[in-house]
Amino acid sequence: MSAAEQRSWLTGLIGHGVGPSLTPELHEREAERQRLRYVYKVIDQPDVDVDRSRLERLLAGAIELGFDGLNVTHPVKQAMVPLVDAVAPAVGAIGALNTVLIRDGRTEGHNTDVSGFRRAFADGLPDADRDRVVLIGAGGAGTAVAHALADLGVRRLLVVDPDGDRAAALAATLRDQSTTVELARDDGLAEAVRGASGLVNASPMGMASHPGSPVPAELLRRDLWLADIVYRPLDTALLNAARAAGCAVLSGAGMAVHQAADAFELITGRPADRGAMLRDFDELVAAESAAGDTTRERNR
Amino acid sequence: MSAAEQRSWLTGLIGHGVGPSLTPELHEREAERQRLRYVYKVIDQPDVDVDRSRLERLLAGAIELGFDGLNVTHPVKQAMVPLVDAVAPAVGAIGALNTVLIRDGRTEGHNTDVSGFRRAFADGLPDADRDRVVLIGAGGAGTAVAHALADLGVRRLLVVDPDGDRAAALAATLRDQSTTVELARDDGLAEAVRGASGLVNASPMGMASHPGSPVPAELLRRDLWLADIVYRPLDTALLNAARAAGCAVLSGAGMAVHQAADAFELITGRPADRGAMLRDFDELVAAESAAGDTTRERNR
Repeated sequence: MSAAEQRSWLTGLIGHGVGPSLTPELHEREAERQRLRYVYKVIDQPDVDVDRSRLERLLAGAIELGFDGLNVTHPVKQAMVPLVDAVAPAVGAIGALNTVLIRDGRTEGHNTDVSGFRRAFADGLPDADRDRVVLIGAGGAGTAVAHALADLGVRRLLVVDPDGDRAAALAATLRDQSTTVELARDDGLAEAVRGASGLVNASPMGMASHPGSPVPAELLRRDLWLADIVYRPLDTALLNAARAAGCAVLSGAGMAVHQAADAFELITGRPADRGAMLRDFDELVAAESAAGDTTRERNR
Repeated sequence: MSAAEQRSWLTGLIGHGVGPSLTPELHEREAERQRLRYVYKVIDQPDVDVDRSRLERLLAGAIELGFDGLNVTHPVKQAMVPLVDAVAPAVGAIGALNTVLIRDGRTEGHNTDVSGFRRAFADGLPDADRDRVVLIGAGGAGTAVAHALADLGVRRLLVVDPDGDRAAALAATLRDQSTTVELARDDGLAEAVRGASGLVNASPMGMASHPGSPVPAELLRRDLWLADIVYRPLDTALLNAARAAGCAVLSGAGMAVHQAADAFELITGRPADRGAMLRDFDELVAAESAAGDTTRERNR
C-alpha cells in the first residue's frame, strides 16, 4: 500500500437484540475524534439461539472480509470461546469473551467486560472498602464483575443468586484467585448486606423490563457503597435509594464506556479518550431519553 | 437507532491481485470529504481461480456482516452475475458486473465500468467524431468499453482481437444496440485505423508488464482521437505517440475515477465530487511514481 494511503478499521457486534446498543456509536465517535477511518457494524442475530455452525460461519466471514475485530454479546459470549485461536487469561478463567481480535487471519479472544468494570470501579469508587462485597446475579455479567472485583483485591465475595448451580459455577471460575467466595440464596441477602462494605447489582433488576430494586431500602446504610451495571436507565431504583441513604454509588455508565474503550484500544492499538467517550455516552443516553426510547439494555 | 447516531457505510473489493488498486483510497477519501463513516476493504483472493462456492460464501458473508455493497473485479466479474438477485440492464447484456448493492439482504448487480468509461469519454473527448471507432481488445474491459461506446452513439465499431471467438462474443452482446460491429484480426488493424475517426485501447498493451504500443506510430493521424484504459502508467507509449502526432487523447484516469464515483453514488445514494476524486487520483499516482512503485494495474 502506498504511503499516501491510510489504513481503515472494521469491526462489529454479534449478538441477539443488539440494535439498541450504544457501543457502535461510542467506537465510531472515538475513531472520528482520532480521524480514523473506522466502521463498527451491528450484526444482529434474529434468533436467540445462534448455533455453532452459524457462529463459525460469521467468524470465518469476518476473517475473509477483512474485519480487524469483533465484539460479541448475549447469547454467544461463551459459544465463541472454543472458536478462536487463543484467549487472554481472563477468558480462560471465565469461559466467556466479548472481544475477538483478528490479525493476519488469526483470532484472539479478550474480555473487556472484566477490564471495563475494573476500570470503572477504580475510577468511580477509588477509595471503596473492598473487604466484603455482595454480588447480586451470577450470570455472565455477574461472572465478569466477580473477576474484576477479584482483580481489584476484594477479600470476600458473597454471591447472591436464586440459581444455586449458577452461583456455584461462578465460584468455581474464581478458584485460582485469592478472593474467598461464599454463596447465598435470595433469603440470605439481608444477612449478607449487613456485614458487607459494598454491593454490586449484576442482575437485570432495575431495567425498564425488570422494574424495582434488588435490595430493600431498609438494608441500605451510609457506609455501604453501591454499584449497578444496569445503564438503561442510569438512575435505577437501587441507585436512587442508595443516594437517598447517603451511599457512594457507581452507575452502569462506566462499565459500558470502559468495555468499549478497552475494545477500541485492543483493536486499533491506539489510546482512547475515555473522558470524551463518557461525555458521548451521557449525550447519547440523554438523547434517547428525550426521544422517549425504551430502556432495553444493560451491561451483560 | 437514535437520531443522535449516524449511519456508517461498509464496502469492499473482491478480486485476485487487488492489493495495488487505488479504488479503496478513492472511495474513502471521497467519504472523508463528505464526513461519512465509510470503510472500503480490500478482499484479495489468493488464487486466480475463485470457485463458485467460495464466491457464494463471500457474498453471503458480506450480507450477514452488514456490507452495503461490493466491488468485484478480475476474475469474478462474470461469475458474480448469477449469484445476485437482480441486475441492471447493462449487466444483463454484457454478462459481467463490477458492483453489487446490498439492501435489506437483497443484492443488485451494476456495471460502473460501462458508466465510468462513458462519463470519462463524454467529459474528456466531448466533441470526438463517433462515426467509426476501432476497439483493440475484446476481453472484459473491451466489452464494457464497447457498450459505453454504443451508449455514446458510435455508429460503427471495429473490434480488433487476436482471439476471433472472443471478438465474436463481444459482438453478440451488442446485438440489441444500433451500433454496427465488425471484427478484424490483428493484421486488419492498419486498414481499420485508416478509415476510423477514433481508437480505444482496451488491451493490456502499454502496462509496465506489457510494454509497447498496440498501434504502430505511422498509423496515427492528427484527425484521429485516441483513448487508453491503461492507467499505470498514465502516459502509455500509445498516448505519447498520439500526442506527438497532434491527436486528441484520453487517458485511463477518467475511467478509473468515474467507475469509482459511480459505485460510490450507487452505494451511498449521495453525489460524489468527481473533480476532487480526479485530483486525488493524480496525487495517488504521483505518490506511487515518486515511491517507485511498480505499475501493475489497469482498468479491466
